[in-house]
Order: sequence, then C-alpha cells, then structure tokens
Amino acid sequence: MRDGHAYLNRSAQHIADAMIEDADRLGIGHSRGSLGEHLIDAGANHQGGIEAGLRIVEICMGGLGKVSAALATGKWPYSVDVRSSQPVLACLGSQYAGWNLSHEKYFAMGSGPVRALARVEPLFEEIPYREPNADSSVVVLETSTPPPAAVVEKVSKATGLAPEKLTFVYAPTQSLTGSMQIVGRVLEVALHKAHDLKFPMDAIVDGAGRAPIPAPHPDFLQAMGRTNDAIIYGGLVQLYVRGSAEAARDLAEQLPSRTSRDYGQPFADIFKKFKGDFYAIDPHLFSPAEVIITAIETGDTFRSGSADNAMLEQSLG
Amino acid sequence: MRDGHAYLNRSAQHIADAMIEDADRLGIGHSRGSLGEHLIDAGANHQGGIEAGLRIVEICMGGLGKVSAALATGKWPYSVDVRSSQPVLACLGSQYAGWNLSHEKYFAMGSGPVRALARVEPLFEEIPYREPNADSSVVVLETSTPPPAAVVEKVSKATGLAPEKLTFVYAPTQSLTGSMQIVGRVLEVALHKAHDLKFPMDAIVDGAGRAPIPAPHPDFLQAMGRTNDAIIYGGLVQLYVRGSAEAARDLAEQLPSRTSRDYGQPFADIFKKFKGDFYAIDPHLFSPAEVIITAIETGDTFRSGSADNAMLEQSLG
Amino acid sequence: MRDGHAYLNRSAQHIADAMIEDADRLGIGHSRGSLGEHLIDAGANHQGGIEAGLRIVEICMGGLGKVSAALATGKWPYSVDVRSSQPVLACLGSQYAGWNLSHEKYFAMGSGPVRALARVEPLFEEIPYREPNADSSVVVLETSTPPPAAVVEKVSKATGLAPEKLTFVYAPTQSLTGSMQIVGRVLEVALHKAHDLKFPMDAIVDGAGRAPIPAPHPDFLQAMGRTNDAIIYGGLVQLYVRGSAEAARDLAEQLPSRTSRDYGQPFADIFKKFKGDFYAIDPHLFSPAEVIITAIETGDTFRSGSADNAMLEQSLG
Repeated sequence: MRDGHAYLNRSAQHIADAMIEDADRLGIGHSRGSLGEHLIDAGANHQGGIEAGLRIVEICMGGLGKVSAALATGKWPYSVDVRSSQPVLACLGSQYAGWNLSHEKYFAMGSGPVRALARVEPLFEEIPYREPNADSSVVVLETSTPPPAAVVEKVSKATGLAPEKLTFVYAPTQSLTGSMQIVGRVLEVALHKAHDLKFPMDAIVDGAGRAPIPAPHPDFLQAMGRTNDAIIYGGLVQLYVRGSAEAARDLAEQLPSRTSRDYGQPFADIFKKFKGDFYAIDPHLFSPAEVIITAIETGDTFRSGSADNAMLEQSLG
Repeated sequence: MRDGHAYLNRSAQHIADAMIEDADRLGIGHSRGSLGEHLIDAGANHQGGIEAGLRIVEICMGGLGKVSAALATGKWPYSVDVRSSQPVLACLGSQYAGWNLSHEKYFAMGSGPVRALARVEPLFEEIPYREPNADSSVVVLETSTPPPAAVVEKVSKATGLAPEKLTFVYAPTQSLTGSMQIVGRVLEVALHKAHDLKFPMDAIVDGAGRAPIPAPHPDFLQAMGRTNDAIIYGGLVQLYVRGSAEAARDLAEQLPSRTSRDYGQPFADIFKKFKGDFYAIDPHLFSPAEVIITAIETGDTFRSGSADNAMLEQSLG
Repeated sequence: MRDGHAYLNRSAQHIADAMIEDADRLGIGHSRGSLGEHLIDAGANHQGGIEAGLRIVEICMGGLGKVSAALATGKWPYSVDVRSSQPVLACLGSQYAGWNLSHEKYFAMGSGPVRALARVEPLFEEIPYREPNADSSVVVLETSTPPPAAVVEKVSKATGLAPEKLTFVYAPTQSLTGSMQIVGRVLEVALHKAHDLKFPMDAIVDGAGRAPIPAPHPDFLQAMGRTNDAIIYGGLVQLYVRGSAEAARDLAEQLPSRTSRDYGQPFADIFKKFKGDFYAIDPHLFSPAEVIITAIETGDTFRSGSADNAMLEQSLG
C-alpha cells in the first residue's frame, strides 16, 4: 500500500466512531479522559459482547481485515473468521499487541493502527509502510482500566497527535469482548511466528484464519489461558506466499504450535510453570494448531498440524 | 439500551425502505393500503425469496441482529445464522410473534419492532425498554393477505402513529420468504422458552443460533411443520448468561426441545394430534434441538440436546 | 426485474469504482487505455488477492449476488459462498463468460453486466431483461493483458457507450484473484447446464453455491484445471425451482458433473486428451459435483452427486 492515505488509522477511527454512535446496543461506554482523550470501555464496567469484540478486531486490523462470527460444527462451534489481502500490514503493522504502554503498576501492550504511527517497535524496520498524515488514531488495550495520563501523554508524544485526537478502546481478558477480541488474533499470531522464523514478510500476500471463541472466565489466568488455547490448540490458518516450494514447506512444518517445546498443556498451566514470566514461555507456542501454506508461484500447498481436541477439552470446558 | 432513540423502529424502517427500493430484485411488491399504510407483499402474490426472507429477519430483530445464509455441510446444508449482542430486545422485544392482530376471519400474530411501541403484551412487563419517539413502525405478518383496515386501525391506535407511518410486511408460511423468515427465529424461540422457564431475562447478554432452511411446502400444515421441525430437530443456539453455574446448567438441561412431552414426531403430526389447537401443544416443544449455555461470571459451559436427523429426515425430506 | 433501472451495470460500476478507490489495499492497478477506457489490472502485473477476486465476483453478478469466503472444514477448507435471489439474471444475464471478445491473437470471453447491454449472444433470446439506459458498463476478462483497442471499440459499438464509460477488469487464470473469481462461478455453471438441459430459465427462482478455492498454479493449464476441478469435483449448488416434482427430479439427476461422459479425470488431463480443443469437451462436465433441487410448488427436494475427494486430491494437491 502507498503511504500517505492514513488508511489504517482513518478506517479504525470510522469504526471507533460508529462504536460510540452504537454504544447502547453494543453495551459499551464512551467518556473523555483527563487530557481529553476518548475512552471506550468495551467490557470493564460495561458488559460489552461478541459484536463489540468483532468491531475491535476490525479496529485492530486497521480496516484491512474481514471479520465475522458464526456457529459452525463440533463441540466449540461458535467461531471467529478473519481474512485479509493485506495480512502483514493488518496483523503486524496494526493488530499485534507489540507496543509496551505500561506505566508503573499499569500493564498494557498497545495494539491497533496507532503502532504504525508511533513506529517505536523494531518490527517496523521491516514494515516500510507509514501514515504521516493521520489526523487521529485508535489504541486498543487488553485491560480493565483506562490508561493513566502518563500513557496518554506517551502516545500523544510518539504520534504527534493531541490527546483529544486519540481514542483508547479497552476491555479485560475476562470479558466476552475480550475473548472475542483476542481469538480474532489467530491470523496475527501465525504471521508473528512466521516473522520469528525469518520468513520474509513481503512474501506473505494473503491469508485467513479461524478459531473457536472460548467462554470467558472470571479468573484472569484462566481467561488468558483459554484465549491462547483456542488458537494454540484450535486455530487454523491458511497463508498464501510467494517464493519457493521449499520455503513454503519449511514454513508449514515449523509454523504450527505443536513444534514448540511448551506444547501439550493448557496455557494457564504453562504460565504457572514459568511462574507467570510470560517471556520465559517459548514464543513459538503462540501460533495456530493447524496451518495450510500455499506457494502461489509454484502451485504447491503444504499442510501441517491439527486441532487438539483433548487439550481444548481440558482448557475450554 | 437507553430509551428514546427509537433504535429498533428506525432500523427496521431503514431496512423496509431499502426493500421497497430493491423490490424488483427481491421479487416483492410494494403498494399502499386503503388507509395509506405501506404494504410489502414478500411472498404471497410476489415470489419473494431467500434474500427477502433475510431482510425480514433483520426487520424482525429491529436491526439488532446479524443475519446470514450459506451452504454448510450435511443433508440440509443451506442454513441461516443469526446472532445478537442484544438478544432479549432483538428477539423478545421485537422478533417474537406475540401481538395478536387477528380480526374476524383474519388470523395474524404481529412480529417486529412495532411490538415495543404498542407494548400490549404481558411480556413487556419484563422488558423496560421503550421507544417513545418513534415516528414510524414496521409490522411483520406471517400471512398470505394484507391486514384488513380494522387491523391497521388497531395498530395505529396502539402505537399513536398514523396509518401512513406504518409498514406491514407479509409473506405466507408456504413461501420461500416465509421458510427463511421463520427459521430465522431459532434464537428467539430459545429466549422465549428461557423466559417460560423463569430464567431472568436481564441475565441473557449475548447469543447466536443456526438452523437449516427447510424447503417450503405448498400445504400450509406441511410448511408450518417443516419450519418448526427445522428448529425443534435441527436448531442450535448458544447463549451467554450472567449468574451462577447452577442456573446456567439448569437452563441448559431444560432448554432443548427434547425435554418437551411432545418431542419425537414431526410437528405437522403433533398439530394434527391436537386437532389444530396450537395452544394445546406443549409450549416447551418450541426450542432448538441443541443448546450451549455459557455462564460468563463463572466460566462454565453446559451443553444439552442434539440434532435429530431421523426427525429431520421425516419432516424436511 | 423491471427494465430501465440499469441495476446490473450501475451496481457493477459502483463496485468497480470502489475497487479503484481501494486499489492499494486490494493490490490492483488502475490506468486508462489508449481510447480512454478504464483498466483494472487485478492480478497480472499487480498481485491482486482473495478480496480483489471476491469483488470481481460481485461485479460479474451485477450486484445481484452475495459473495463471501471463509475457512470451513476438510482438506480444502477455504471456500467461496455465493447466493442470489435473481440467479438467472446474476449468473446467465451477467456472470457467464459468454461474449467472445477475442481479436487476432487476443483470446478473451467477456463476462459481467456488459453482456446484458450488448445482448449479442443467443442466450439473451431467453432473457428478456434489458438495461436501455445504462450510462456506463463493466467488462470482466480472464486474461493477463488488457484488451486491444479493437476490442474496446467492439464493446463500445455494441453497447453504444463511449470507451471512457467502459471499465475492463482483468486477471489471469494463474493469479490468486483468478482462482477466486473463477470458482465464484459455481452457481453460474449449474444454471448454464440447466439451460443446456432445456430446463426453463424462468422456473429457477433462487440459488446458492459453494466451492473450495483452489491454490493458483503458475502454469495456465494446471491453473485452469484446478479452477474447473474445484467446481466439477468439489462444488455444491442448491436451486429452488417452480414446476413439477418430476422436472425437479430430472434436473437433479442430470445436473451433477458426474453425468458427463468426460467425468473422472483432472480437467487438465481431459483438456490435453482433446488436444486443447475446449469445445470438444462435453459441455455437461461443467457443473457442480453435488446438487440439491427444491421444487417449491410441491415441497419436494432431490439430491444428486457428491464431492469427489480422490479427484480433488489429484488436482488441487
């Protein structure tokens, strides 16, 4: 995509504005923070729901993803479907929760198109896309409280936008909105692991993913566990890539979650085993259970991994 | 949702206006009745179809539902999917065909957002939502003829709206539109039975449903039988509820159609057995074959019931 | 549908205009040809993708189809879903690639609503619909190069529209856009074969189809083979028809691809067997693997055919 259109941030702003307009029916709340920033409570003191979660996934993907939810078959039939013909921009340039917006006791990883404005993460060295003329931006946070003023200021400074031009959308992991919003990352985690595996990002041209929507859990650890497990043990992704059949086959073999040394337990147990040190967990665990990689320049398709119903049973209930 | 926005009626009006605009491609007809009311014939003297039926489901749900139809798998693959993050308002406050609009030989139960204006049914004692400033309204009728003037006047009087502000959309049970429109009630019947079971309505926060779209039948009894059977023997619903795990488990156990004493025959046969006395049939029969209830405050999920292919085979053909 | 609204061409033009607006995110290119015609390269020198392909299917169906893509189940889960409540107009009046726009060495069959303006094909003797007041038109071509000036002039002359009022959208068979665009014809091939079987076109009132999206292949023959095989060995269509049960049953029995004498080999092999003479291949091969025909006036449903996984395995990989 060409620079300069501010497509991601403008699209996300339109979706956020529509959420505010539809606040009642979405079960969410809109207010202004101390610096004038817009705050959308999508699952903390407000109920939120599946529809709110879907809209947040669309915001996260900067308007570059098609997102839907419907009942399919099997024991966990309610599933989310995402697809994008700009998967790298949508998922890594925007959706990935990669911007550390923690401050003192406030822990938050920023997601959404604001990241493509701030460009403070090393990941952006490989994503040349810029939005120099965005005039507003949206930040998505998996938290139960709005960001403190210091975080708003940090985002304002990094983006060059006044706080009143920023919208922070937040919902905790334990909310229905949160469940939906997180499993909406099924395609994103595949791309992020592909990046970790040094697969060239500009070779990924299209993609789609699906994952069951897990029941939310009031306990943070269980809630986080379920959303991760829904993807790790139940997610499916298909990527279309340029390049050789060998590169596609290697990616297919390495991409599924089962290649990780930590595969095979509910995520909450793994998290406990590592005493809550998220970064001690093998990052290669974070990927879909099953992948299909199609090499469009050779016509070959490679499949690897499969849903692990026993693990879903243990985790999702 | 807050009162005063007239969200349901305004949304339904927009959809009805678009149907009139697209009348040709939907195979429907628009005319004005003797009192100036708008009439949309969506399957009586006009052909109608799947798309017309889907739009009517959207009207029925007051714009609070997401509705789609696609081919899935199995012997009856063509299915409707509905979901709502305002299931009680969408389904009981609007979609439920609960307003008796019969007059002399004209039998009709009114459905759609007009019910939330008229509020003449006891059900509304438990639905505090109101739309005091609606300036138009839409009534959906499962009939083969438009309402007589007396019915238009009754609706006008109950809503305080002049007849020319009212749109009546009608399609008979036997039409393709009707088949679609009726099985689009799969989520609604689950909510209605939950209400009958005294489950607190304000505890139901989100929901989705799916049912096969049965082939229409030229015989009214067979057509009615099939649409009921598609839900009773083939429907699936997932509800997200607040409250205890016990309450959710109880709801799951009692909600599926198989808990009814009348379960186990094609609906047309049951109807004949009761000599056509609809109200002699166990109301607990009217619910999906399979339910999934998720207690969002405890993280528990309960499943009960299953599709009954033998009964679908007998009824749907 | 009534004549005079130019619904198909206006709808297609809106979609084409939106594609140009979204060119960057769709990975497509827009330029003007030597006569001022609009050119959309959707998969030749530009990458294109699934989203571009979906939009082209919508153009092909003149805005009368609902088109989506999502991951389902099975070995080839990524599937396209199409449905239309105006299937004859959408598929035969518009989508069918039936207008020969070849010129010297340039081979192209024109698809899209331009056909309903030009009306040069015998097929239009049975499709009374006309769009006399269309003020622009869209032509879809399965090619890797834009049309030469002589073809633009031919279209201009046949439609009475100046070249600058014409938009040509093209993408080769081998592109991801092409794969998507071609299997989006799953419903159309069923209608075309029904027409060949002399089934009355005005008796077909509604329809839906689904087919796996095959991996594109860089070799034209393999790419063409896969897109055909996805439909022939993996497609499913349901049609709603008026008329007798016998006529519906006969249609069901004759419609699936397996009734063809050429059924049973990958399409590329069949094509080679006939030394590349497309028109030597039994036209009855071009239809979905599985069909469901519902006679709405009698309530009967007839099923015939089934997906042929062994053939899909051989062809799609």
